[in-house]
Amino acid sequence: MNKHAIYHRPESNFCFAIDEKTVVLRIRFAKGDKIERLSVLYNSKYDIAKTQYRAKMPFICCDGLHDYYSVTLKLSDPRLAYVFEFSSDGKKYYFCEAGVKESYDFSLAYYDSFQYAYINKNDIIQNVKWLNNAVFYQIFIDRFDKASEKDESYINASWGDLPTPKSFFGGDLDGICKHLDYIQELGVTALYLNPIFKSLSNHKYDIIDYYEIDEMFGGKEAFKRLVKACHERGIKIILDAVFNHVSEKFYPFDQVMALGKQSEYFDWFVIDGDKINADRDNYDCFAACKYMPKLNTNNPEVQSYLIDVAKHYITEYGIDGWRLDVADEVSHDFWRQMRRKIKAVNPDAVLIGENWHNSESFLQGDQFDSIMNYGVTKAFLDFFAREIIDEKGFAEALNAQLMRYTDTTNNMMFNLLDCHDTHRFYSEVGCDARKLMCALLTLVFLPGSINLYYGTEILTEGGYDPDSRRTFDFEKLNNSEIKGIKGEVAYILKLKNQPAIAHGSIRIWSGDGYVTIERKCEEQTLTLKICSKNYTIEGEML
Amino acid sequence: MNKHAIYHRPESNFCFAIDEKTVVLRIRFAKGDKIERLSVLYNSKYDIAKTQYRAKMPFICCDGLHDYYSVTLKLSDPRLAYVFEFSSDGKKYYFCEAGVKESYDFSLAYYDSFQYAYINKNDIIQNVKWLNNAVFYQIFIDRFDKASEKDESYINASWGDLPTPKSFFGGDLDGICKHLDYIQELGVTALYLNPIFKSLSNHKYDIIDYYEIDEMFGGKEAFKRLVKACHERGIKIILDAVFNHVSEKFYPFDQVMALGKQSEYFDWFVIDGDKINADRDNYDCFAACKYMPKLNTNNPEVQSYLIDVAKHYITEYGIDGWRLDVADEVSHDFWRQMRRKIKAVNPDAVLIGENWHNSESFLQGDQFDSIMNYGVTKAFLDFFAREIIDEKGFAEALNAQLMRYTDTTNNMMFNLLDCHDTHRFYSEVGCDARKLMCALLTLVFLPGSINLYYGTEILTEGGYDPDSRRTFDFEKLNNSEIKGIKGEVAYILKLKNQPAIAHGSIRIWSGDGYVTIERKCEEQTLTLKICSKNYTIEGEML
Repeated sequence: MNKHAIYHRPESNFCFAIDEKTVVLRIRFAKGDKIERLSVLYNSKYDIAKTQYRAKMPFICCDGLHDYYSVTLKLSDPRLAYVFEFSSDGKKYYFCEAGVKESYDFSLAYYDSFQYAYINKNDIIQNVKWLNNAVFYQIFIDRFDKASEKDESYINASWGDLPTPKSFFGGDLDGICKHLDYIQELGVTALYLNPIFKSLSNHKYDIIDYYEIDEMFGGKEAFKRLVKACHERGIKIILDAVFNHVSEKFYPFDQVMALGKQSEYFDWFVIDGDKINADRDNYDCFAACKYMPKLNTNNPEVQSYLIDVAKHYITEYGIDGWRLDVADEVSHDFWRQMRRKIKAVNPDAVLIGENWHNSESFLQGDQFDSIMNYGVTKAFLDFFAREIIDEKGFAEALNAQLMRYTDTTNNMMFNLLDCHDTHRFYSEVGCDARKLMCALLTLVFLPGSINLYYGTEILTEGGYDPDSRRTFDFEKLNNSEIKGIKGEVAYILKLKNQPAIAHGSIRIWSGDGYVTIERKCEEQTLTLKICSKNYTIEGEML
Repeated sequence: MNKHAIYHRPESNFCFAIDEKTVVLRIRFAKGDKIERLSVLYNSKYDIAKTQYRAKMPFICCDGLHDYYSVTLKLSDPRLAYVFEFSSDGKKYYFCEAGVKESYDFSLAYYDSFQYAYINKNDIIQNVKWLNNAVFYQIFIDRFDKASEKDESYINASWGDLPTPKSFFGGDLDGICKHLDYIQELGVTALYLNPIFKSLSNHKYDIIDYYEIDEMFGGKEAFKRLVKACHERGIKIILDAVFNHVSEKFYPFDQVMALGKQSEYFDWFVIDGDKINADRDNYDCFAACKYMPKLNTNNPEVQSYLIDVAKHYITEYGIDGWRLDVADEVSHDFWRQMRRKIKAVNPDAVLIGENWHNSESFLQGDQFDSIMNYGVTKAFLDFFAREIIDEKGFAEALNAQLMRYTDTTNNMMFNLLDCHDTHRFYSEVGCDARKLMCALLTLVFLPGSINLYYGTEILTEGGYDPDSRRTFDFEKLNNSEIKGIKGEVAYILKLKNQPAIAHGSIRIWSGDGYVTIERKCEEQTLTLKICSKNYTIEGEML
């Protein structure tokens, strides 16, 4: 038995509350270790010295290196103390805060049992139900369709041209409104729009005015029309919150450029010295993009300004949440305050971070509901595109992602194959539509929401930015093969409404050349068997 | 090599910032694994694909199951990506977010390197400098000395009697004032007082009025005199914040007892039903003490009430911080808000949780500065008192505690041998003064502050509550042996002023029947060799 590999941590992805009397425990052992009679011994922290309840912990999954076991405890007291007990090679062991022991003295449990000292309601990660099976359609607005009446002089490219970093094609918000029937037929339940605020670029990640909807996209009235039209159809709509950085033309930065430390906005940015120097290399910015200076989100004035922006679009326009750009570079302190203010206005407004890496520190219930699940994206690329992992490796990678976060968080994950920041997945799999369909279906079977990047359903190709941001080709919809693909995409996405997929439990394993994903709830079990080019679904659709 | 045992986690005790350009990394391997050429390969997350810097990671310590390696990185960019590289059995390995690999493709590091995406100032755990080498003297006020003029009719026991749960001896705040010379001679730099607010009990953990200083203790004027006298001598003073529960006579609870749901205070408590029932078994309380009903710290009104209390004693009386009673049962959400408000008033006011267990979830810089370090207390008891671990086990247990938290947190730890909630350590070691001195010295050598429970310096005995709360026997100070002990305690406590102990690095190991603790800073190295009854200190005192 590999003592050194055993891992557990209270108040984490290994121990989390679902409600004030329900706790999920997980524990991790070295893969393949023969662990027998694994149980958790538990009780109220004030009673465990005298009496211990026992719950068996079954195996739930493995990743590349570890086996995971889990149990859901129903408690009569929200003050939990617990110790794990198991046997291996005929010997009994206890695992507590002080490590692996051959005996355990419960009369001293107040010193070194594990504890979840009290499950307080405010600390439980809240589930936003609509996110559990949301199907997002992500639109890069300049490239979807054009319908607003507006000054078109900024347009410098013809629809269908390959985009350059500086192309403007003219897509706008009314262009989305026009196609809501089409979008809804796909099974979409929510729109995720790339930035729409006033900005000089086509991508609008360099914002000049957070309170203006860019006139290129049709302005405020067009956005109101879109929100109204979406909500009438029951479609949610979330926007892109670019709070890490701004445009160099954002008034406060412009002032600082002119006045240096004399400007009241000097501390809104991160500047080394008393003014922006001639080479413009003494202030923090996004990546190495000097035209996108970083905001100092440690400054209370900036915090309050941005939180007001975030609230404004919820209270004045009724949007349903925010995707948070470069969220992992913005301070936790800021996100904690923003969450508090946003959830006070609308607890169902979602906060989804653009976090590419392990984000436990953002997902404890005090900051984000969800993140863009790039960990899963990577596993899909490794399996379907790069083919550097087999079915076993793919199942392991998916389980590793599930075990990284709590079940509540997994159920709100923003799962994606691609987006404006990646190559298009269809191109990554060598334009193999079967692989794309298999991947999309596998993604649908994972807990949480799914993001369909505009044009995926018509097999739009594209490499890295700007190539992944091509114009939507509505003419392709006349092609019968594309029609078929679109129909299959709609079939797949609508599976998100099946109860087992919408809110069932999940198990993932591999064998016989397949990855198997089983989703299960009281009324239904659905089992997906998948390899890179084929799939079968077992179970009855409801 | 034991792949399964390797552990690291960003933004945790394994990866934490000291300032915006300094990060400490730790990694853990199975104990005894032969790990060679361990390095971290790192750079700004935007540059790591092209160039990786390399820093060697030396071994720093081991606990019972693991070896720890660490390095402090000085960064030029606060956006860190990193991957560990090492060899074992002649084979090279990489450890990244996706696990242990035999090769690593840095061009895909944006997917699965480890990251500390941006070190934001507000997220760095702040060091409160005075806490780094504070020597607390903890006083249970009814039992120290009596000097206030007051109505003494409540006193029901004679000084020197063994206490019962209901004894009142008459000790008060002026009784402390009177002995500040004595206390300061011991090397004490801060007082920690058990609760002083209006309450019916001798311990005053059942508070009736947070805005009254109990008349038994001399009232508000006596407390003002004490704070003034302490501050004139440079002695800090912290109070006990009992925010988890109140007295049943606390006005809001009294109202709820009378009116049930009709009371405006109904939601201040956690009640199952519309009123407190006749058996009084339908509301949450501290432990099983029905006379101490639990406050609902999820309720914003309660939150704001308690935060006002906490602020009041800082702004109106000038206290230097709070010890937080039953802190682990109060909501994180509450503590986050309280910290924000308290630190806005005085960033040097400390918040020290009464947390008996692993408290990572409270010590991320957003809640407490410190906790009562019972994990260390347990190790001291196991070694000096129960003798169930040897020198090796003791060194391992101490290292396990150090590795549990960040260096910044370790440097603010509230280390204690005993307090009003435990047996007296002197009694635990069978009244062996040599053992007590060895233990105290070892505790002084650990980073952070130290708590001397009143009377330890005169070898006061005592079992569990109420026995650990005996009256202070000033007459014992006439005894020459006790004088000697008191002198030795003072010598030991004053070592906290030695630069190496006040702010140096620490290494702990065992061998030759000793535990060795080495503290080191630029100007000094002090090395303690300790067994349960003897010690030597090497190095020059400054």
